[in-house]
Amino acid sequence: MGVRIHNFNPGPAALPLPVLEEAQAELLDFRGTGMSIAEISHRSAVFEEVLNDAAARVKRLLNMPEHFKVLFLQGGASTQFFMVPMNFIPEGSSADYINTGTWSTKAIKEVEILGKPHKVIASSQDRDFCYIPREYAVSPGAAYLHFTSNNTIKGTQWRGLPTAGGVPLVSDMSSDIMSRPFDPKPFGLIYAGAQKNLGPAGVTLVIIRDDMLERSPKTLPTMLRYTTHAEKNSLYNTPPCLCIYLVQLVLKWVEDTIGGLAAMERLNREKADLLYSYIDESGFYKGTADEDSRSMMNVTFRLPAEDLEKELVAEASKNSLGGLKGHRSVGGCRASLYNAVGIDSVRALIELMKEFARKRG
Amino acid sequence: MGVRIHNFNPGPAALPLPVLEEAQAELLDFRGTGMSIAEISHRSAVFEEVLNDAAARVKRLLNMPEHFKVLFLQGGASTQFFMVPMNFIPEGSSADYINTGTWSTKAIKEVEILGKPHKVIASSQDRDFCYIPREYAVSPGAAYLHFTSNNTIKGTQWRGLPTAGGVPLVSDMSSDIMSRPFDPKPFGLIYAGAQKNLGPAGVTLVIIRDDMLERSPKTLPTMLRYTTHAEKNSLYNTPPCLCIYLVQLVLKWVEDTIGGLAAMERLNREKADLLYSYIDESGFYKGTADEDSRSMMNVTFRLPAEDLEKELVAEASKNSLGGLKGHRSVGGCRASLYNAVGIDSVRALIELMKEFARKRG
Repeated sequence: MGVRIHNFNPGPAALPLPVLEEAQAELLDFRGTGMSIAEISHRSAVFEEVLNDAAARVKRLLNMPEHFKVLFLQGGASTQFFMVPMNFIPEGSSADYINTGTWSTKAIKEVEILGKPHKVIASSQDRDFCYIPREYAVSPGAAYLHFTSNNTIKGTQWRGLPTAGGVPLVSDMSSDIMSRPFDPKPFGLIYAGAQKNLGPAGVTLVIIRDDMLERSPKTLPTMLRYTTHAEKNSLYNTPPCLCIYLVQLVLKWVEDTIGGLAAMERLNREKADLLYSYIDESGFYKGTADEDSRSMMNVTFRLPAEDLEKELVAEASKNSLGGLKGHRSVGGCRASLYNAVGIDSVRALIELMKEFARKRG
Repeated sequence: MGVRIHNFNPGPAALPLPVLEEAQAELLDFRGTGMSIAEISHRSAVFEEVLNDAAARVKRLLNMPEHFKVLFLQGGASTQFFMVPMNFIPEGSSADYINTGTWSTKAIKEVEILGKPHKVIASSQDRDFCYIPREYAVSPGAAYLHFTSNNTIKGTQWRGLPTAGGVPLVSDMSSDIMSRPFDPKPFGLIYAGAQKNLGPAGVTLVIIRDDMLERSPKTLPTMLRYTTHAEKNSLYNTPPCLCIYLVQLVLKWVEDTIGGLAAMERLNREKADLLYSYIDESGFYKGTADEDSRSMMNVTFRLPAEDLEKELVAEASKNSLGGLKGHRSVGGCRASLYNAVGIDSVRALIELMKEFARKRG
């Protein structure tokens, strides 16, 4: 690693080292063009190849059927929170939401601001979002069912997909996309800010089923209609080219170096199991999420006292382990183990935690 | 320049070489953090310093008074086209627009889609947008007057500011921001996609006068309200950190290396004068914009025949001069001479044009 630290940041987060090295090597001259990728027209064949390769890799990695389109948009998941209901709740219809934490709550707030009919059919707020609800009844004929596949702040994650009986699923997968395979067929739309498993902040991956596009009202501003971006292959306006290029490199790494999502999941499972096992056996650290709802991506845990948590984070930082502070809204500690975090980093963290528990336990 | 070409791209466009070199050098380890700038939390002190330095440089370079805020948003100018009327035309009010080409027309289309009252008080469409209108009467009490300061496609540019008699100016300055000084006081809002003079595509600079924020309706989606971003210093959601960092490096180059906007304008003026003078005296090439409306940023010109234009572009490309094709909607040739294009590139272009005219003229 050389000067590089063990990076447990929750997002923006660790990127694969080979991706950064490749980007660095060609930053002044992108594949013989004599220009940086950031200096090249988005309408050039050179850039379109990057864009189309990224989209093709998304489809292959996720095993998406033909009738899904891959878009690269701007504005993060926060923009999808209102674009989804704006585009997908037609007059006389209503959407279902499951609330599993901060990001779900924000998505629900935006449908409320729009004044669009919706129903929160399940929530884990009763126990501070420490679990994924098992009991819910999807409204027959709902416009869609929205859920957050992984909850970065509370450290919970859906194991399987919600059962929605034909109602299209819409999911914010910002923090676990490309971490494991899943069945794409029940989905109407998937969105993910890039800054956890896909690349740098500044681009949002959107995957949309063709028939959902028919719902987009023509009365929306051009940029807020999914149809605009689908018809123009994400080139209606200048896209965030540099960010898309880095996403392409990350996808290439997942597909060609790691070997796809089944292999990626095995690595992620190994990392998470290692850390959770140590936490459970430590008698000093305590996981905050229910066991059956634990996230593979964000391991949240507490120490016996807040002072000790601060001390651990500071101690870790001194030893080149960064990003372990819990979200400012909940406190505690959190180790984000996204795709690019190596098992060596998890081992280094456990060593440090052991040593800390020995001294302070 | 080594392997680097002379880059006349209209946007994404040339970046200053020292900026790319600095970014390359620290891409794996940002200033001793052991992380790439793309891997660092947007809520860290390290990133906030980058963000705040960029904002401070914008204010210093443009000589913006205290009561203006600098924001870094996503979605490009195309998103500002509808955010401006959504936020700034209160019930019972109407906005004025001046139409000087493709981008103005798109801005006007979005206010139309929203169904908000507006008036196009001047247009140069009668002569295919080859000039900047001199005659217009601003509506008393208009919500704002919108204009496009530089028109990349038609190669025209406002010399001074429109006279609006107290009506706040709103301007799309995507293609000439930071190219010359101007009086900031008549403005209510300025916006600029970064991909010409500021940095890579993927971030939009917005500068807003404090009192304009009071107009933002609370009924808008959170991300579409300027107040959201102003109150949170562009950190309501994860911003495009990598792009903002590159913008900061570009601003540092303009301020510290070039010496500010008066110096920048002298360099830009010299480059444009050189090329226009040659075109005028050539007897072979013909500028498309009226002389008093010519852009310093985008020099548009025609050759006696379309075939010759294609041949010139191909010949230039073979000689490492790129990006000279006119916009697909108008044809012809265009040399974009943004801040980062050196006078050596302009001289190389003129040499090539001379040689081409000698052979084909």
